[in-house]
Amino acid sequence: MSPQKYLRYLMLPSLFGTARTKEILQVNPTIVPTREEAKDVKISVYEYNAATIQEYNVETVSECLHCKDTDYISWINIDGLRKTDVEAICNGYDIHPLVIEDILSINQRPKMDEVDNILFCLLNMLYFNEEKSSVESEQISIILGKNFVLSFQEDAQRDVFNPVRTRLKITNAKIRQRGADYLCYSLLDMIVDNYFIVMEKVGEQIELLEEEVIRSSNTRSLARINKLRKELIVLKRNFAPVRDLLNGIIRSESDLLEDRHTKYYKDVYDHIVQAFDLSENYRDIIMSMQDLYINNVNLRMNEVMKVMAIVTCLMAPATVIGGIFGMNFDKIPYLHNDWGFFIAVGLMLLIPLWMLRLFRKRGWF
Amino acid sequence: MSPQKYLRYLMLPSLFGTARTKEILQVNPTIVPTREEAKDVKISVYEYNAATIQEYNVETVSECLHCKDTDYISWINIDGLRKTDVEAICNGYDIHPLVIEDILSINQRPKMDEVDNILFCLLNMLYFNEEKSSVESEQISIILGKNFVLSFQEDAQRDVFNPVRTRLKITNAKIRQRGADYLCYSLLDMIVDNYFIVMEKVGEQIELLEEEVIRSSNTRSLARINKLRKELIVLKRNFAPVRDLLNGIIRSESDLLEDRHTKYYKDVYDHIVQAFDLSENYRDIIMSMQDLYINNVNLRMNEVMKVMAIVTCLMAPATVIGGIFGMNFDKIPYLHNDWGFFIAVGLMLLIPLWMLRLFRKRGWF
Amino acid sequence: MSPQKYLRYLMLPSLFGTARTKEILQVNPTIVPTREEAKDVKISVYEYNAATIQEYNVETVSECLHCKDTDYISWINIDGLRKTDVEAICNGYDIHPLVIEDILSINQRPKMDEVDNILFCLLNMLYFNEEKSSVESEQISIILGKNFVLSFQEDAQRDVFNPVRTRLKITNAKIRQRGADYLCYSLLDMIVDNYFIVMEKVGEQIELLEEEVIRSSNTRSLARINKLRKELIVLKRNFAPVRDLLNGIIRSESDLLEDRHTKYYKDVYDHIVQAFDLSENYRDIIMSMQDLYINNVNLRMNEVMKVMAIVTCLMAPATVIGGIFGMNFDKIPYLHNDWGFFIAVGLMLLIPLWMLRLFRKRGWF
Amino acid sequence: MSPQKYLRYLMLPSLFGTARTKEILQVNPTIVPTREEAKDVKISVYEYNAATIQEYNVETVSECLHCKDTDYISWINIDGLRKTDVEAICNGYDIHPLVIEDILSINQRPKMDEVDNILFCLLNMLYFNEEKSSVESEQISIILGKNFVLSFQEDAQRDVFNPVRTRLKITNAKIRQRGADYLCYSLLDMIVDNYFIVMEKVGEQIELLEEEVIRSSNTRSLARINKLRKELIVLKRNFAPVRDLLNGIIRSESDLLEDRHTKYYKDVYDHIVQAFDLSENYRDIIMSMQDLYINNVNLRMNEVMKVMAIVTCLMAPATVIGGIFGMNFDKIPYLHNDWGFFIAVGLMLLIPLWMLRLFRKRGWF
Amino acid sequence: MSPQKYLRYLMLPSLFGTARTKEILQVNPTIVPTREEAKDVKISVYEYNAATIQEYNVETVSECLHCKDTDYISWINIDGLRKTDVEAICNGYDIHPLVIEDILSINQRPKMDEVDNILFCLLNMLYFNEEKSSVESEQISIILGKNFVLSFQEDAQRDVFNPVRTRLKITNAKIRQRGADYLCYSLLDMIVDNYFIVMEKVGEQIELLEEEVIRSSNTRSLARINKLRKELIVLKRNFAPVRDLLNGIIRSESDLLEDRHTKYYKDVYDHIVQAFDLSENYRDIIMSMQDLYINNVNLRMNEVMKVMAIVTCLMAPATVIGGIFGMNFDKIPYLHNDWGFFIAVGLMLLIPLWMLRLFRKRGWF
Repeated sequence: MSPQKYLRYLMLPSLFGTARTKEILQVNPTIVPTREEAKDVKISVYEYNAATIQEYNVETVSECLHCKDTDYISWINIDGLRKTDVEAICNGYDIHPLVIEDILSINQRPKMDEVDNILFCLLNMLYFNEEKSSVESEQISIILGKNFVLSFQEDAQRDVFNPVRTRLKITNAKIRQRGADYLCYSLLDMIVDNYFIVMEKVGEQIELLEEEVIRSSNTRSLARINKLRKELIVLKRNFAPVRDLLNGIIRSESDLLEDRHTKYYKDVYDHIVQAFDLSENYRDIIMSMQDLYINNVNLRMNEVMKVMAIVTCLMAPATVIGGIFGMNFDKIPYLHNDWGFFIAVGLMLLIPLWMLRLFRKRGWF
Repeated sequence: MSPQKYLRYLMLPSLFGTARTKEILQVNPTIVPTREEAKDVKISVYEYNAATIQEYNVETVSECLHCKDTDYISWINIDGLRKTDVEAICNGYDIHPLVIEDILSINQRPKMDEVDNILFCLLNMLYFNEEKSSVESEQISIILGKNFVLSFQEDAQRDVFNPVRTRLKITNAKIRQRGADYLCYSLLDMIVDNYFIVMEKVGEQIELLEEEVIRSSNTRSLARINKLRKELIVLKRNFAPVRDLLNGIIRSESDLLEDRHTKYYKDVYDHIVQAFDLSENYRDIIMSMQDLYINNVNLRMNEVMKVMAIVTCLMAPATVIGGIFGMNFDKIPYLHNDWGFFIAVGLMLLIPLWMLRLFRKRGWF
Repeated sequence: MSPQKYLRYLMLPSLFGTARTKEILQVNPTIVPTREEAKDVKISVYEYNAATIQEYNVETVSECLHCKDTDYISWINIDGLRKTDVEAICNGYDIHPLVIEDILSINQRPKMDEVDNILFCLLNMLYFNEEKSSVESEQISIILGKNFVLSFQEDAQRDVFNPVRTRLKITNAKIRQRGADYLCYSLLDMIVDNYFIVMEKVGEQIELLEEEVIRSSNTRSLARINKLRKELIVLKRNFAPVRDLLNGIIRSESDLLEDRHTKYYKDVYDHIVQAFDLSENYRDIIMSMQDLYINNVNLRMNEVMKVMAIVTCLMAPATVIGGIFGMNFDKIPYLHNDWGFFIAVGLMLLIPLWMLRLFRKRGWF
Repeated sequence: MSPQKYLRYLMLPSLFGTARTKEILQVNPTIVPTREEAKDVKISVYEYNAATIQEYNVETVSECLHCKDTDYISWINIDGLRKTDVEAICNGYDIHPLVIEDILSINQRPKMDEVDNILFCLLNMLYFNEEKSSVESEQISIILGKNFVLSFQEDAQRDVFNPVRTRLKITNAKIRQRGADYLCYSLLDMIVDNYFIVMEKVGEQIELLEEEVIRSSNTRSLARINKLRKELIVLKRNFAPVRDLLNGIIRSESDLLEDRHTKYYKDVYDHIVQAFDLSENYRDIIMSMQDLYINNVNLRMNEVMKVMAIVTCLMAPATVIGGIFGMNFDKIPYLHNDWGFFIAVGLMLLIPLWMLRLFRKRGWF
Repeated sequence: MSPQKYLRYLMLPSLFGTARTKEILQVNPTIVPTREEAKDVKISVYEYNAATIQEYNVETVSECLHCKDTDYISWINIDGLRKTDVEAICNGYDIHPLVIEDILSINQRPKMDEVDNILFCLLNMLYFNEEKSSVESEQISIILGKNFVLSFQEDAQRDVFNPVRTRLKITNAKIRQRGADYLCYSLLDMIVDNYFIVMEKVGEQIELLEEEVIRSSNTRSLARINKLRKELIVLKRNFAPVRDLLNGIIRSESDLLEDRHTKYYKDVYDHIVQAFDLSENYRDIIMSMQDLYINNVNLRMNEVMKVMAIVTCLMAPATVIGGIFGMNFDKIPYLHNDWGFFIAVGLMLLIPLWMLRLFRKRGWF
């Protein structure tokens, strides 16, 4: 590869992604949230008990406030965040103002809180953007109350709770026979399960990259290694606090959580621990890939330099011999001999060949 | 870039900043404080309850000692530290002498203490000096007592509590309806929120630097990486103890803290934890930038050496051929041939071209 | 070794094993298990007490459900997992549905659970595949209940419990005189003991590799170091959670576990801790081997470059002398002297010899 | 710098200090102490209460044993350790034999013990030896009993407790109004405060070194980095156990310690924590300095090699042209042309200049 | 040093010690112990109380079983392990079968257990083999029971308990006046004290190595660094679990341990913590030595390459000048001038001298 090509790679911003660094570094949970108000807000309500289930979408939040007073378990899912809507519904359900603030905030660290007889979970759904090869996150807030679950999703377009919805509609599914905390568990489980899908995608990137490093090892590889290290930061930044969140739920003594469901939360906890461990493994493999990359680059470079040095070295004796018989002394042996020239040229060939043999014998070539 | 330029960079003290190292290393909390007495001391007093608020500045500390005995909640903010003033006011409020010493000390590690029925917090406000690209700190002491808050700021010029003041003046703001501990929370919250602004500035420096490393990778870049590593030390040095401070408040069983405000302190705690995590991420990114820098420098160097070695190597056969036909033997084939010279020169060109092709085929060029 | 040979190694996928990376990274415990249904399921039943023992194989799971109601201690070992069978037997023994799910899952992190009066352990049996030099795992689930132990093995072909079976058949063996929890201990002990056999095999690989690194240090060595680092990841991934598992059993206050057997579980715990420590030692040794490898590669490269540089340098004076007396000036001293040529050639030899001596004296050669 | 100079540095033992390594490594607290008996033992006694104070020196230990039975608080400071003296006084005060052993031992790790109604602290006073640029330590033992404090110092020459003595003589100083535990606190505080002075000196060394690394980066710098890393080991070796010591005192429920003094011990604790944090910062800065050093050394080396390679490469075409027109063919174009020579020499100059321009354009020079 | 010499070092197995790696890695505590039965078993019995002491050797274990029922404190030391003997004595003293297994096992991790009213300690005595420069270990088992101590040593040849024996024979020695747990403490203390002697020996090796690295830095040094890193693994592998062992004894609430002896166990604990810290310091120093080694090797290599490159570069202009005046043009200035040759040769000398001056000025030489 020509040097200019190297330099060209060095300048490709798409490769080294300063933009991505910006996204990862510019995290400020405390400023007034700059999130655009969602244009489209979808509010879907599920009211169910073991026997019956009602599912409907409402246009305005006021339409779903009545759920609070029914005997059904209700799940209100708000897809897309609009300040007025969030405040309206939360006030309707007597949610603490700080929780409302957390729901509306951006870049929040995943966390769990028990306030005023509700249990509040804030965490991120992760997606893998195949085009940009980057991990994207969507903030999800889940409020578990007596007989109700509120869930808020940042992005109206993406939704991962469909499997839960499907299960809800099955009459004798366990989810229908259990309380609101089982629903809450199902949502958390769904989110954590999704992390593994993202990890799998990142894992695929690592594999592809490893193949590339083994085959060609150019600067592009280092750029990718660099990029993957950044994505791993995003993953870990989410896993560690979600682990704490789930641990908090398991150790919580809230009345909202039935004892017989602890086992389920422990199951999700086991998964997030595994995800965290796995992200450590990823890191190890990426670091060992970087070692490999550096080794390969050095190996190639060394190879070239060695061959060049050897070729230059092999030619040196010929130059000397040429110089010897090119001197203008009156008396130089063999100069007038008919075979002199051929002897000299012969030497020019034989000495390097002898050197070559010596070098090979010493294992240098 | 010429070697002299390199060396010139190496000598620019502004680049590698020994002075900054001095500031970071020369931390001694125990010597008699050498801080200059503030020339200008601003003392502002707020006395308020849910219904009314009084705001006034006083000239001498003695004027604000009466606040102690009113039913109002009072906030006395002292901007600029003068030994006599601090002692006067603290004695007026029966503050433990060791706390007074801490307020007047410099380079103190952030910490929290419960002494004699007050709660004492010492921490640093951080600012980012854009000119020097360095993180500066101002020591803030906050004393929470029964119905009063005293706050001491080192620097009379800089003040970050204005948003709190604005909120105080709003009649039915929550801050007016709650006790002194809510005010104390508001001040701590303001300080921690400010940390994120500083981090954002440092983050911007990292981004700019990353771009520079990708584009040009000269010694200046390493100097900057080095500088940023130092600034991160300053950040971490503040975050970890502030985390402990807030944790201490949350776990405190002081009567000064209302239970219903724990949630608020937990919120600030979550933020400082996030700031701490973020500073770890910064570190990871800076280290991976350093790897990138070293790789880029090596790549450029290798490129140059490789081309030089190849060019030198390609010229060697021509030298040998020139030497062969420059020998003074009587009988040298082709010497008297009309095309001899051109054949020789032709060989001088063809052999390197053949070598070049070989090198390219092996991917060395 | 020629450069082409190097590159050939670089391309050997068997050496750098992207496939292995895939296996290690693609861990997703949450998807619907894709494990093929076992074709062959072997169900063996042992019913025993101190006095008598019955051993028989059954064809269908329903044949072993009666064991639940006998006074004997019964051990039902299912070799090969088929969804319907696992569900049938677990339902027969009133096992919690989540446990059934765990048994049927793949890539699960080892863990221990106490649910509904049973104690559930999930861990991996490890094998060392000598052909692929890789660590393989087989998921084992053990359920300890009142008077019964159920064990599920993924792979019908491989079984490591034979020593336990042998001991069971001995009339006054301790295992016969103790309860089901002692049997459970025996199984766990057998699994952990087997880890050491796997570690020994990995240790042998490390030794062989170290010998290779010392002797020849080619790219193949780095590939192997890389591979071993991956195998260590697999080992550690199993050891840390099994340690937690055993710790959980020791601290458990379940009625299923007799106090006098704690000492036995502690013994297994001590072993797994030792295995974990040992895997750390392995890591240290592999890392120090990598340092050695890099040092050796550099040493060889440096050696070659140094010799080439020295040879080239030694020939330079001869070239200059040849050039001097090859100039076409009318008057050149010694040109017409009979010994001139020999003096010149003599100098060509003497100067390099003098240089060589100088170099040697300075320890460069 | 000539190679010989480099090698000379390598051999300067004063630079790389094997002797220092010996001191740091040869730590054996268990052998029979080989400390020379102090020739000079100074015993000073302070007997005081809030009202009066008596200060006198005694010649023999027996003279100070009466203090035990007075109502005064007594502080007996023994400067210089002699086995018989230490045993005499300790036996007089009923000190446990193991404590006596500890006082007389050398190389002991700092620690705190509560035995037989006394509180025993063993720690090191640190000094910075400017000549050797090394951290020296003196073992201090402090025994706090009911109404008395015994302090033992290894070295009769050095004493750091003078400020405490001065404060003792002031009639209404707080130290006079409080009990023996406040005196004990004052001594510990004095020792920990002194650590910061030592750290400041080490910090100055780091600064000086950083300047040197930036300016010249020779082997001497690496030797100093190496040395400082060793001094940091000494610092940390003292800080971590002293932190434990102070933590032990704070959590102690001994009757010897008044509750209202906890705040004071916490203050010292805060300082030692800060010292420990600071030593971590020092380490970070030293490691980043080592990175800088390596980078600078490589940069210089690369610069030289690059220039040499470029110069050699630029001369190669001239050699080839000289060879071309030095060939002895009958017909060589321009050979008989009057300007031939100048054209050839012109080419010899022009080709390197063109190459130079090309190299510069590619940024190699 | 010639290249062949380098390679010879690379092949010296004694230097890089694969055998040692085998010993360190092949740790399997679970296999049936392969330890050879001791040929020579020495059984010594001490029966004592404050007033009298009896010391005798017995031939068979049965002779010492009567000690169990006397009022004396008895210490039975078995030097050399033979399965039948160990089982006979342990059964005589009602020791749990698992403890017997542990005593007979090999490669066990040090640990402490309280079983059936005895206290069992298993740890390793370490020795430094000066010939092989390696740390050797001998497994020691100590059983503390009501009024008796049993100690088992693997190797009948080596014994470190002599100082304890000496003290036992002194009539009013403290060891005679205290119970069996004080004897047990004395044995553990003896073992831990011995660790420091081993560490001192390892420390000496580090010093010697550091001197070697500073002076000559050849591959032999790296081999030794490598070796020492392995020995440190052995040391740490012993220290960490012994620390846990002692901590376990201190926190134990066994009736076998008198409260007034806790202080003694704490003393041993302090020592093992110090040994552990020290081994961390050793590691730091070895790693910084490795940095030094790599730096020195690079420095030497760079020095040689630089000088070669400079010499080659200095000769290039002479070659060019020789070529210029060796061309066969008809008209070459100064060719017929009498001083032409000398001017040319003069230039050949002057240009390199000028270059040399330039290089020196830029600090390259």
